[in-house]
Amino acid sequence: MNHLHGQPHALPGHRNLLAGYTARHFLFAVEEGVATLTLNRPERMNPLTFDSYAELRDLFRALATADDVKTVVILGAGDNFCSGGDVHEIIGPLTRLDMPGLLTFTRMTGDVVKAMRACPQPVIAAIDGICAGAGAMLALASDIRFGTERSKTAFLFTRVGLAGCDMGACALLPRVIGQGRAAELLYTGRSMSGVEGERWGFFNSLHAPQDVLAAAHAFARQLATGPTFAHGMTKKMLQQEWNMGVDEAIEAEAQAQAICMATNDFHRAYHAFVAKEKPAFEGD
Amino acid sequence: MNHLHGQPHALPGHRNLLAGYTARHFLFAVEEGVATLTLNRPERMNPLTFDSYAELRDLFRALATADDVKTVVILGAGDNFCSGGDVHEIIGPLTRLDMPGLLTFTRMTGDVVKAMRACPQPVIAAIDGICAGAGAMLALASDIRFGTERSKTAFLFTRVGLAGCDMGACALLPRVIGQGRAAELLYTGRSMSGVEGERWGFFNSLHAPQDVLAAAHAFARQLATGPTFAHGMTKKMLQQEWNMGVDEAIEAEAQAQAICMATNDFHRAYHAFVAKEKPAFEGD
Amino acid sequence: MNHLHGQPHALPGHRNLLAGYTARHFLFAVEEGVATLTLNRPERMNPLTFDSYAELRDLFRALATADDVKTVVILGAGDNFCSGGDVHEIIGPLTRLDMPGLLTFTRMTGDVVKAMRACPQPVIAAIDGICAGAGAMLALASDIRFGTERSKTAFLFTRVGLAGCDMGACALLPRVIGQGRAAELLYTGRSMSGVEGERWGFFNSLHAPQDVLAAAHAFARQLATGPTFAHGMTKKMLQQEWNMGVDEAIEAEAQAQAICMATNDFHRAYHAFVAKEKPAFEGD
Repeated sequence: MNHLHGQPHALPGHRNLLAGYTARHFLFAVEEGVATLTLNRPERMNPLTFDSYAELRDLFRALATADDVKTVVILGAGDNFCSGGDVHEIIGPLTRLDMPGLLTFTRMTGDVVKAMRACPQPVIAAIDGICAGAGAMLALASDIRFGTERSKTAFLFTRVGLAGCDMGACALLPRVIGQGRAAELLYTGRSMSGVEGERWGFFNSLHAPQDVLAAAHAFARQLATGPTFAHGMTKKMLQQEWNMGVDEAIEAEAQAQAICMATNDFHRAYHAFVAKEKPAFEGD
Repeated sequence: MNHLHGQPHALPGHRNLLAGYTARHFLFAVEEGVATLTLNRPERMNPLTFDSYAELRDLFRALATADDVKTVVILGAGDNFCSGGDVHEIIGPLTRLDMPGLLTFTRMTGDVVKAMRACPQPVIAAIDGICAGAGAMLALASDIRFGTERSKTAFLFTRVGLAGCDMGACALLPRVIGQGRAAELLYTGRSMSGVEGERWGFFNSLHAPQDVLAAAHAFARQLATGPTFAHGMTKKMLQQEWNMGVDEAIEAEAQAQAICMATNDFHRAYHAFVAKEKPAFEGD
Repeated sequence: MNHLHGQPHALPGHRNLLAGYTARHFLFAVEEGVATLTLNRPERMNPLTFDSYAELRDLFRALATADDVKTVVILGAGDNFCSGGDVHEIIGPLTRLDMPGLLTFTRMTGDVVKAMRACPQPVIAAIDGICAGAGAMLALASDIRFGTERSKTAFLFTRVGLAGCDMGACALLPRVIGQGRAAELLYTGRSMSGVEGERWGFFNSLHAPQDVLAAAHAFARQLATGPTFAHGMTKKMLQQEWNMGVDEAIEAEAQAQAICMATNDFHRAYHAFVAKEKPAFEGD
């Protein structure tokens, strides 16, 4: 059994912990509820490989049951976020695969995004420099994106003869920046500048290169000390209501919020308010 | 039978009128087809209570069959829109409810949004000052939002230990301001400034505090003198097509617009055009 | 058999060509894979007629199997894009139709949009001056829109007593510019300026009036020399995933991209990269 697989539920007496996990294909550390995942091959602008895709998928799946991680910060080492799938290590081998092999690959990369959207922890991306291809998809699959002016985000699948529909791009990007702008980026593979990204809603805010990681960490710490069970429900419902009708979404939220009203954190907030204190949330 | 309940349809010889309705938990007035709904407890920044939620739900449901109301303007008395559910009058009692009681409450608040989206009248919100929690949801559930620079809109459910999924927020907000910006506001509960709101598409326009209500009324009067049956169809289809495929939406619009082409207002517009006159729409 | 109808598939030995097609109700020309469609009644601001709707529908349907057209540029002759359905030639006759006749008309106009969204070629609109009613819908149904500051785009159906739900407007416009801004334009029929349109994501970029067509053509040529089979897949998936859940969209893209990885263009791109050359895509 893979050491990333925890119990299916946080049952009484069991705690699934990821703090001790040593990643093989990137860096991973947990501090005070905030996991930091660093793509770490800066001399190549942090490309993805078959192995790192698989480990990202497994790690984000394991986060679904991790008790000690409340938010995740993802970044690239050095001055770049991620250059995407490496041409020599990924594209070359793909040209020699048969159809079942190709589908195994595209499903594996898609599973990374599925796992990022399914784990309850909000994922905050700190993006500087090159953010390309599958790297741009890791950014897009995050909940919150902090960028820099000099960052260059490119959904450049078309440059290698492929379609813009990769890992969910045609579903996710239009909802973040609008259908018309998404179409342009996906057809051309051109870079979106940091300023465009902030203006269009891709980046939540821009920061100086030396500050962007600190901004992401500050945001992640803030959420990690909040009502984390409720944050997980917010994330679940943003996903769940993606293609519901409005009335169905409202009923779904009535149920989801009633669950949250039965949590201790809701009671803690009320009693803190009455006592004119700051609530101390515990995520249960 | 509640005096808010009209006939299910505007049958010949029946006119359902709301002009004479005296609201108990807010102010309500109808003038020349424009209803003005004022949340009116300015010393507390116009909070919502169990009673006002229920009356809002019943009133918007009654608007579905009201013949004398063509548009609705919603605002808060004084310098604030609405502070949301009152901590003492709502949050406290909620902490003592059992699960069926909680669900009854979250369904009631959701029903306010359902009723606002289901009534045929476009709803125009005039927003100054604090616009928070369920108040922010009243704004979001409106069709058109006029704001002020100093307005502060906060989906602050997380501050009381709850999730961002409340009254449809996770469905509605991403479609108005984009998925990434919505995620930030819902996870953090932070205030969106007036300038951000206009830039992101939450506010249709910003106005000076002394002008925002007049702007909302002018807009409401303009629509009220237009082809109001057709406006109701526009509103219905914006809701109906929320999660349809593109081809299904186009067929739905072909049917909806064919219905509108059978109205007198369509003929009035044509004949006015031929006569080089301004059409006088009557909403039938 | 209409000369616009090609083989259902590009079978071996068959080439369906549209280069020789002479349009009757607008101008149509094909050069190096780029089709240029010019609405050509500049003295009336290029209105649409029953005949031109039908020919647009048939032409975009024929493009689905055309082997010699890789992208489409659509524009209006003179200083305007399109004034929409002509009042005398369209609105007048419509007031005399029975319900089946009305539905036949609204379905025909909707079929133009369906065909524009279904053909594999990206459609680039060059928009100057008036862009109104059904003309605004032709712009909205395009994939990419280049505009001018002085352009005026108006979904003005309400001005003739109709609803904003026409040819898919209530589905498409909110996803391009956001739900709140779309509601305002559809309820009021007011003009969106070029600057607003660019700011809101309707226009991909603004150009001087004398440059906008050249910009559209340059963009169209760039895509036409790219991996056009993959572009067609991008367009298909942008449509297909419109109302899928996120996980379903990711699986759909895994399949779609696996198909593209089996194309020659993907292999060409890889070998060109290894040889440090620019890939020469052929669309197969």
